[in-house]
Amino acid sequence: MCEANAYILNEGKEELYLEKVDRVIPQEGQLMLENIFGQRKIIKASIKELALVDHKIILERL
Amino acid sequence: MCEANAYILNEGKEELYLEKVDRVIPQEGQLMLENIFGQRKIIKASIKELALVDHKIILERL
Repeated sequence: MCEANAYILNEGKEELYLEKVDRVIPQEGQLMLENIFGQRKIIKASIKELALVDHKIILERL
Repeated sequence: MCEANAYILNEGKEELYLEKVDRVIPQEGQLMLENIFGQRKIIKASIKELALVDHKIILERL
């Protein structure tokens, strides 16, 4: 499976926000994340970087 | 490997923009994409959707 873990940048450190994310859909200044278990989270953040080979989605709070 | 293909939405259709993308970095209204071969492309676009299990990054031109 090729999901990635989503991390929030907090004072330069990556904190795990949601594991095994499949889908990310930006909507009106927020991001909807859904993982392979069907768990959904919505956060006021933007994507700072994707590093898919490392299975990482880096988010930054807005 | 868990890279994804990047597609541009054009009149509702997904057109392949860059294969086997590893990294995506948003910067000032643009996106820098780099694939696993080190090829880089910069596009004035935003991320419309990630569907990682399907290996898809869907972009929309700005």
